[in-house]
Amino acid sequence: MSTNIESDTADAQPATTPDVESETEPEAESESEIDTHPEPGVETEAEPESDPSVDTDTNTDGDGDEAAESDTEGETEAEPESEGGDDDAEVVTSPPQQFTAAIKGGAIKEFVSTLRAVVDEAKIRVGPDGIHTRAVDPANVAMYDVSLAAGAFESYDATEGVLGVNLERFEEVLKLAKKNDLVQLSFNTTSFKLVIHIDGVEFTMALIDPDSIRKEPEIPEMDLPISLTLEEAQISRGVKAADMVSDHIRFRCDEAETTVYIEAEGDTDNVSLELADDDLVALTAADGNALYSLDYVNDISKQFPTGTEITLTFGGDFPMMFEYQFSDGECDVLAMLAPRIQSD
Amino acid sequence: MSTNIESDTADAQPATTPDVESETEPEAESESEIDTHPEPGVETEAEPESDPSVDTDTNTDGDGDEAAESDTEGETEAEPESEGGDDDAEVVTSPPQQFTAAIKGGAIKEFVSTLRAVVDEAKIRVGPDGIHTRAVDPANVAMYDVSLAAGAFESYDATEGVLGVNLERFEEVLKLAKKNDLVQLSFNTTSFKLVIHIDGVEFTMALIDPDSIRKEPEIPEMDLPISLTLEEAQISRGVKAADMVSDHIRFRCDEAETTVYIEAEGDTDNVSLELADDDLVALTAADGNALYSLDYVNDISKQFPTGTEITLTFGGDFPMMFEYQFSDGECDVLAMLAPRIQSD
Amino acid sequence: MSTNIESDTADAQPATTPDVESETEPEAESESEIDTHPEPGVETEAEPESDPSVDTDTNTDGDGDEAAESDTEGETEAEPESEGGDDDAEVVTSPPQQFTAAIKGGAIKEFVSTLRAVVDEAKIRVGPDGIHTRAVDPANVAMYDVSLAAGAFESYDATEGVLGVNLERFEEVLKLAKKNDLVQLSFNTTSFKLVIHIDGVEFTMALIDPDSIRKEPEIPEMDLPISLTLEEAQISRGVKAADMVSDHIRFRCDEAETTVYIEAEGDTDNVSLELADDDLVALTAADGNALYSLDYVNDISKQFPTGTEITLTFGGDFPMMFEYQFSDGECDVLAMLAPRIQSD
Repeated sequence: MSTNIESDTADAQPATTPDVESETEPEAESESEIDTHPEPGVETEAEPESDPSVDTDTNTDGDGDEAAESDTEGETEAEPESEGGDDDAEVVTSPPQQFTAAIKGGAIKEFVSTLRAVVDEAKIRVGPDGIHTRAVDPANVAMYDVSLAAGAFESYDATEGVLGVNLERFEEVLKLAKKNDLVQLSFNTTSFKLVIHIDGVEFTMALIDPDSIRKEPEIPEMDLPISLTLEEAQISRGVKAADMVSDHIRFRCDEAETTVYIEAEGDTDNVSLELADDDLVALTAADGNALYSLDYVNDISKQFPTGTEITLTFGGDFPMMFEYQFSDGECDVLAMLAPRIQSD
Repeated sequence: MSTNIESDTADAQPATTPDVESETEPEAESESEIDTHPEPGVETEAEPESDPSVDTDTNTDGDGDEAAESDTEGETEAEPESEGGDDDAEVVTSPPQQFTAAIKGGAIKEFVSTLRAVVDEAKIRVGPDGIHTRAVDPANVAMYDVSLAAGAFESYDATEGVLGVNLERFEEVLKLAKKNDLVQLSFNTTSFKLVIHIDGVEFTMALIDPDSIRKEPEIPEMDLPISLTLEEAQISRGVKAADMVSDHIRFRCDEAETTVYIEAEGDTDNVSLELADDDLVALTAADGNALYSLDYVNDISKQFPTGTEITLTFGGDFPMMFEYQFSDGECDVLAMLAPRIQSD
Repeated sequence: MSTNIESDTADAQPATTPDVESETEPEAESESEIDTHPEPGVETEAEPESDPSVDTDTNTDGDGDEAAESDTEGETEAEPESEGGDDDAEVVTSPPQQFTAAIKGGAIKEFVSTLRAVVDEAKIRVGPDGIHTRAVDPANVAMYDVSLAAGAFESYDATEGVLGVNLERFEEVLKLAKKNDLVQLSFNTTSFKLVIHIDGVEFTMALIDPDSIRKEPEIPEMDLPISLTLEEAQISRGVKAADMVSDHIRFRCDEAETTVYIEAEGDTDNVSLELADDDLVALTAADGNALYSLDYVNDISKQFPTGTEITLTFGGDFPMMFEYQFSDGECDVLAMLAPRIQSD
């Protein structure tokens, strides 16, 4: 059994979505001047056209929880993480009025393929400072929060807005671009489509109603005592070895030894990778260990760009955080993975 | 529905084959001294041993049509294309009395793999000037006409004749040769087999009765107003992009803009590749567009040798011609693709 | 029909295994002080705890046959080949008391993958001079005898003993090591497991009861008149070509021509590779030929290390011997392949 990252508990609803998901089809409740309702005729009886409690709710929830609540294992009563100043106050649900950007193929491909580790479609939030997406996998076990700063782009001009993107299709289109090819992106505010230019080819991609996409999870406030930074190759090696004997992988820290162990136990065979001072870039040691699903760790570690330093943060039976950057630090990736209950 | 390249309509029969195909097994009607009938006992009642109308027919048909007939869409009332002087007068149906040749692996592999795009077996016509094959795919949608001149060979000595070749097997055998390995070919007039020498390995390959192979199509006389020459990479890029959204691909020319567009329309997404002066080696512009099956265009464009210039010729709802060369111009390839009926 | 390498005929039993295999589960009959019986409760009624005839049997069989018996085709009344002095006298069936070794990834991978051509698990016999395994495929058609001398190791310290190894798992673990990575092996005499260290990763692999592994075949004494030594590329080329036309491959030697032919006959097509002086490193010619299953020859030739010289020894309808070395001559490989009965 796994401890899930609950993103759809009734009392942990993100502020902007009305609490009607289980009874009715999620319908757009955008407050913007652009009407993005694709199916105007569907039943809306239980659905408020706009949620008056948005601002109040967010603030109460946000401020109150951060100070007063402690984390409870197995139920990630979550806080909205401050993404950039006043984002909390009013979450945008309409498409941007302006979005024109140009970026190297390598960077945008990395952004999309990272998210593809957990979802096929996602809300990409655009704004003056860059683009940002948070998504959780269907089983609520792994979450990604990925930001691509405006500085990662060759040119960038955008207002606040959200784009519902079919990542699978987007990834396919991006295959037309080599690493250093320029990919030009622009949102057509008339057709509501994303226009992608790659070396003469113009690709017009329909967007998805953002409200039909699963809502973004919140990141729980946690006190994770163990933190280590190491080359991705070290983790990949441990994961590859563990995969030979088990479906699970344990990360264990011995404070006295200032050593971290990546371990896996099979029916007859065992694997252990010892990571001491020489193997680590940084370590905050504490006694503790946690067990994770190897399939998920495998999927996450596959996304690590070659040669990157990864920071792992964990603690007994809490989610593990994987943090790294690419595109010269202009792209921040945070992956969060729920632990597996330890039977021993 | 597609406009097919009709090669078996009764009134469009190639001059050299007696009109008995639908009632009897096609049997050899060779006039040469070498008897290639593998089954001498089969019924031959409706089958003239040699067709006395051959020469007359060909000349009447050929000269008359070229001057007087205009093309009618959907029915490719075809002319035999002059392949080399007096070939029209007497089409050889017997194996050559002499065929000994040596060629680099790369060239012969390219020749065979090009034909493999449409057929598994073919008649290879050999003669003093080189080898030549024309074949149409089983659905009558795509045709290839490929010539490998004697100059493409390291050594070459052949008399007129036809070899029925299992191209699938031949292609497999040629895998033994690297690009610059010498492939020696010789027809054994005693065993009627093709002997292939590659770096010490002698491969003896049985031939197929040429009369059991589907007859060669004729190339219709057409007036195709639009012609463009471009790098194969440009076409490949357009085809790859189109393949993401649709099963069809449109080639459209705008005379005023002197621009050609490769376009594809999917249910929600569209692709457009604009090819203007900078992208083209040559262009004869006229207003017009035609739609083709993407599967076929894909198969044809996969055969383009890397870096080659391709000449496309087309016009509204007519077949498209793809022409290019390889082996330093010693190999000429013509592919013809029937259009799809446009529903819009 | 194939001539099998019979390793389980009653009267050709290897000396150390009691003749009870067909009625009862093979149970350990080790005489060593370490008890390796994993299932002490199984029925042992028909099973002597130790075989008193071991020494006698071996000596009688070994000495007697070598001098007196001539080979009979189709029945490989086999002799134990002297592997190293007094091995014949007492065959060890217990694990070693000491086994610690370090070796380059490339060498140990080659050792394991060679054996994997015929079996998934094997008895690896360790001793002061190195490690050695002999195994036959389940169909009794192909056998490997592979020795890795102590000199092939970076460091080596072992006493006599036998390890039952799951080669499939071992091969998978070794994928963690690159060609020049150091692989450290040690047998844990307390847990009876093999501990494998590769670049920080410690892999603990359970061993298999050697007595549950099929017993080692014996190599028949044969008088094979034809012997040739050649580059592996030559054989691979012939095998690849033969594979296109047939399931069988013939090796034929013409004494007068001092030439060896690798031949294959298909229903319609034939392949022949002529190997004369220039193609061969050495040749002992005699008239004769033998037919082998192409699948097996293919599997064996795939194992040849690139660029290695292979010595083939064969004679009419006898098994063929393939001999080569790798790791600077520290690893000796002998593969033996039973012939196919020739129907012509």
